[in-house]
Amino acid sequence: MDVSKIKNPQFLKKMSVSQMNELAGDIRSFLIKKLSKTGGHLAPNLGVVELTLALHKVFNSPKDKLLWDVGHQSYVHKILTGRGDRFDSLRQYKGLCGFPKRSESEHDVWEAGHSSTSLSAALGMAVARDLKHENFEVVAVIGDGALTGGMALEALNDIGHQNRNMIIILNDNEMSIAPNVGALHNMLNRIRSANKYNKAKEDLEYLMKKIPAFGGKIASAAERLKDRLKYLLVSGVFFEELGITYLGPVDGHNLSALMDSFNYAIKKKGPVIIHVLTQKGRGYKPAELDEVGTWHGTGPYKIESGAFIKPIAAAPAYSKVVNDTLQELAREDKRIVVISPAMVVGSKLEGFGKEFPDRLFDVGIAEQHAATFAAGLATQKMKPVLVIYSTFMQRAYDQILHDICRQNLNVVIAVDRAGLVGADGETHQGVFDIGFLRSLPNLTIMMGKDENELRNMIYTAINDNQGPIAVRYPRGNGIGVAMNSPLHELSIGSWEVIRDGRDVTVLAFGPMLQIALKAAKQLETDGIQVQIVNARFIKPLDSKMLSELAAHGRPILTVEEGMLAGGFGSSILEFFHDQGIYDLMIERMGIDDCFVEHGSVNELLNELGLTSEHISIRVKQMLKNRTGTNRIRKAITS
Amino acid sequence: MDVSKIKNPQFLKKMSVSQMNELAGDIRSFLIKKLSKTGGHLAPNLGVVELTLALHKVFNSPKDKLLWDVGHQSYVHKILTGRGDRFDSLRQYKGLCGFPKRSESEHDVWEAGHSSTSLSAALGMAVARDLKHENFEVVAVIGDGALTGGMALEALNDIGHQNRNMIIILNDNEMSIAPNVGALHNMLNRIRSANKYNKAKEDLEYLMKKIPAFGGKIASAAERLKDRLKYLLVSGVFFEELGITYLGPVDGHNLSALMDSFNYAIKKKGPVIIHVLTQKGRGYKPAELDEVGTWHGTGPYKIESGAFIKPIAAAPAYSKVVNDTLQELAREDKRIVVISPAMVVGSKLEGFGKEFPDRLFDVGIAEQHAATFAAGLATQKMKPVLVIYSTFMQRAYDQILHDICRQNLNVVIAVDRAGLVGADGETHQGVFDIGFLRSLPNLTIMMGKDENELRNMIYTAINDNQGPIAVRYPRGNGIGVAMNSPLHELSIGSWEVIRDGRDVTVLAFGPMLQIALKAAKQLETDGIQVQIVNARFIKPLDSKMLSELAAHGRPILTVEEGMLAGGFGSSILEFFHDQGIYDLMIERMGIDDCFVEHGSVNELLNELGLTSEHISIRVKQMLKNRTGTNRIRKAITS
Repeated sequence: MDVSKIKNPQFLKKMSVSQMNELAGDIRSFLIKKLSKTGGHLAPNLGVVELTLALHKVFNSPKDKLLWDVGHQSYVHKILTGRGDRFDSLRQYKGLCGFPKRSESEHDVWEAGHSSTSLSAALGMAVARDLKHENFEVVAVIGDGALTGGMALEALNDIGHQNRNMIIILNDNEMSIAPNVGALHNMLNRIRSANKYNKAKEDLEYLMKKIPAFGGKIASAAERLKDRLKYLLVSGVFFEELGITYLGPVDGHNLSALMDSFNYAIKKKGPVIIHVLTQKGRGYKPAELDEVGTWHGTGPYKIESGAFIKPIAAAPAYSKVVNDTLQELAREDKRIVVISPAMVVGSKLEGFGKEFPDRLFDVGIAEQHAATFAAGLATQKMKPVLVIYSTFMQRAYDQILHDICRQNLNVVIAVDRAGLVGADGETHQGVFDIGFLRSLPNLTIMMGKDENELRNMIYTAINDNQGPIAVRYPRGNGIGVAMNSPLHELSIGSWEVIRDGRDVTVLAFGPMLQIALKAAKQLETDGIQVQIVNARFIKPLDSKMLSELAAHGRPILTVEEGMLAGGFGSSILEFFHDQGIYDLMIERMGIDDCFVEHGSVNELLNELGLTSEHISIRVKQMLKNRTGTNRIRKAITS
Repeated sequence: MDVSKIKNPQFLKKMSVSQMNELAGDIRSFLIKKLSKTGGHLAPNLGVVELTLALHKVFNSPKDKLLWDVGHQSYVHKILTGRGDRFDSLRQYKGLCGFPKRSESEHDVWEAGHSSTSLSAALGMAVARDLKHENFEVVAVIGDGALTGGMALEALNDIGHQNRNMIIILNDNEMSIAPNVGALHNMLNRIRSANKYNKAKEDLEYLMKKIPAFGGKIASAAERLKDRLKYLLVSGVFFEELGITYLGPVDGHNLSALMDSFNYAIKKKGPVIIHVLTQKGRGYKPAELDEVGTWHGTGPYKIESGAFIKPIAAAPAYSKVVNDTLQELAREDKRIVVISPAMVVGSKLEGFGKEFPDRLFDVGIAEQHAATFAAGLATQKMKPVLVIYSTFMQRAYDQILHDICRQNLNVVIAVDRAGLVGADGETHQGVFDIGFLRSLPNLTIMMGKDENELRNMIYTAINDNQGPIAVRYPRGNGIGVAMNSPLHELSIGSWEVIRDGRDVTVLAFGPMLQIALKAAKQLETDGIQVQIVNARFIKPLDSKMLSELAAHGRPILTVEEGMLAGGFGSSILEFFHDQGIYDLMIERMGIDDCFVEHGSVNELLNELGLTSEHISIRVKQMLKNRTGTNRIRKAITS
């Protein structure tokens, strides 16, 4: 059937299992085709086709609440709830969101982009239901990786304690099972559903031991971490001891088995966890064969060959530059170790890990632990580098504050994907960190103007021994500068004038510097001379240069790819007012008190008013206002 | 012996067990006497006297690393490492810190004030040791409550995975055991130490079932949560499945048993957890009999009677006002529910819990879960109130950002102990939240000038349905205003002029408002007229009033009990510059880029330059500078 015509999941109620299996094929073809153009989280969604169909068959959304942990596996759910017709715009500006979105559909009851939140939220919904004496099911679908996140374990403990009716689907997509074992499992599950629980459990344990060790995959450290925890979970002891009924494992591609287990879970009192085994990338060979996660989230690709259609990058990715620099430095300095919270591939740390397997620590989805583990290493004079996406660093705010900054430990925080990230949207933009890091005592914060300066910043951070340093760098590729100069240290707090100009000074850093330079060139044609400063140290500021700027008295414009409230621009206002200088024209450009949705970075910059054109217009306005008089009254009467 | 004369723990090496038992008595007498004057964490420290003695007997600090989770149970460690002579100054300004402090002693290798960090840090130390081919033991002492914190579970998973030599002491101070059971346990432990592990384990499980349910204590929700997890832990399955050798339970007041288990653990390869049962308050009857945690952290008391020497409060505590208001409102509005992360007593929520036991959720030490659980409740149109200390809210930053603010859910966050907290010091000051909350879209932030305004703010927050609202309130008691007026709603973003004055305007909120008023009265005697504004909405600002202030053109001084970087004062600078108003004299007072140590709030305010005298001096300086000319050049040449 044409799945883009589906309006809501009601039609499933009348479907037979064989019709649903046919539909599953149609959905897979649809996803493979659509995502070949738009990119997206292909493998996770191919893995949950039957699971999602079974959920919408058995449960009545939106009355029953379906929560998708992390949320990138909600594509099939989106198709079944009437959004198939929007998949050409998936993850694109103003298009269909790649994650659940409450404003898109009444069927999206919970939004998530960071892992491990669904259990807490589902418990909240279940409590609300009980207190209001309402009657509906709450079902959270959570992946095996998300269980290593501390808050999921906090929630499980409370769920067992509160003993509310709710269903947790543990979507275990790492452990592949041989077909015959699968068949036996299904049988076992039927036995269990018939209430012969204890016997089934014994048999199950016996069977689980026979499963080859997690499909014989080349296990990364993060996978081994998950597997260890999973082994504990699979036995069911963990959940059962916490007071949660454990069902499974269930073959996640067998619709009848899934529906049986859901129906059984509905009848049980209290919380139930259903352990479902699914295969990531199911139905698309290149994704099925993927062992390193290439097909987890992809760009466009050729359907037949599975080849990615990537624009040829003119310059290396910033993440790769960080890896290469660390790898180079680690050869000389044995104290350097790298910590990543389950983002070794995303942060392109494979090279470091290959050369120094004992010095790369993938701790799984566990940002809090990652930060404090780094702090512990630093107490013993190691040189830990915590490589972490800006958005995931939010999870470790307290640990960075207390354990790293308060103890003034020499931890380098490599803040990956700082600034706008594009298609992943609201939950992944790295736009809050300047504000929340800047108020932490002892911390130095920097961001390079290009990939070569980034190299030198990593070098500087490693060699500095004065306390913690955060080095920010954006998602994507560098700008193509030469990279062969010898590494050198930057003087902490030193900015540089990139371009001279008598009329206005623009303070910018990172990718915004290039945009500001472009604006300066545009403005030159109008006879306006713009000075451009590479404000590469966000903290401490270059107080000498700022004092010189004050002496000149030129209007100053700050430009940043981050929240305006408490951001870099604010620190400039603070600096001058603290110096008793409060008659300088200072204006700020940045993100004004809103969450930034998905789209290409350029589209988002345009929406946010952060292009070179916007800078040009703002500079002209500033110069115009400067010649006006009585600005105060004007502002009040306007 | 006179324990205040101890210089370092070396002397223990020559002591017999009976001498050590005598010493334990001396230490208890010392603690009971000293803390009766200073206050402090009496019960936790009385519980770990033998444990700490045994640790320093068997291990060689500082070569071996001893980490104290949370850290408030490190008093005995402080005595044994030569700081007994400083206990008269415990938790006082410039005195002995109530938590481990690296600058105090080489024996303090890890600083902690928030729970659950020790395991991650200890793993970091163990990894550093192994990579450097050094040879020392790493021992983390963690309480049973701290294990519900997500980061501890993240760390346990990684510890099992990494398989480093390290020792975790699980200090289980809730489960009391009958003497005979204790004796049997000790015997069992000896059997186990003799390597007959499996048999012992079976016997142990049998025995554990015989232990009366956690001593028959009146269990709070948080205790039940801990107990549930603990039951899982006690069986050892949890740890053993994760790859951590489990030993115990060991009687934590039996020196020989403790030392035997430590010595056995040292010989074991890989991580070992020793489950130690201790009795909080051991050796001081009033603390031993305590069932609600009164003796966890105390003020001064009379030794004989155990009566607390409290100054008679003229006004109710702010926390109590919040409880009472919520209790009053909850009678009419069934949607109101309250969530606390293990701080029901601290936040004085017993009244609400007693009247609405089904609507108070103590989720244990689990701040992340608490915030997202509240968000889940709000999706179903409940009115969740998350009552959380400012400092512990740091743990839930990402959840407040993503799950509450990004989804614009009607969660009320009652930010307890906002501002300086006093004796708990660096790790507990609530001085970062204005900065990190202010940049979150959709969030309203307010703080009342007194306990009556706080009541109305809670009322306003409950009745507002426009998104999340944070209501801040300080530690300690109100200022004694009348509380009997009918509750009324404040207009969001509305400030009020408290006092008129033509020369300078001071913007302040919360307790700083009283201090500013005092300054205004002082200044009046010098002929300076100060206008005082109650800037009770930190976000949104009162733009109408600010525009009026701009029209008047008076110098403006902002005063806040929080970090200056990105704080309230910055938001005022931002406001005016965004309006194109950049010739107003605006200065800011607050905390300038440092961590604030322990001391009384008044002492700390004095150190930070935030008393009425400091405000007076600053106002005079501002008026003087205002009459000067060419401020810019002056600032540069100065």
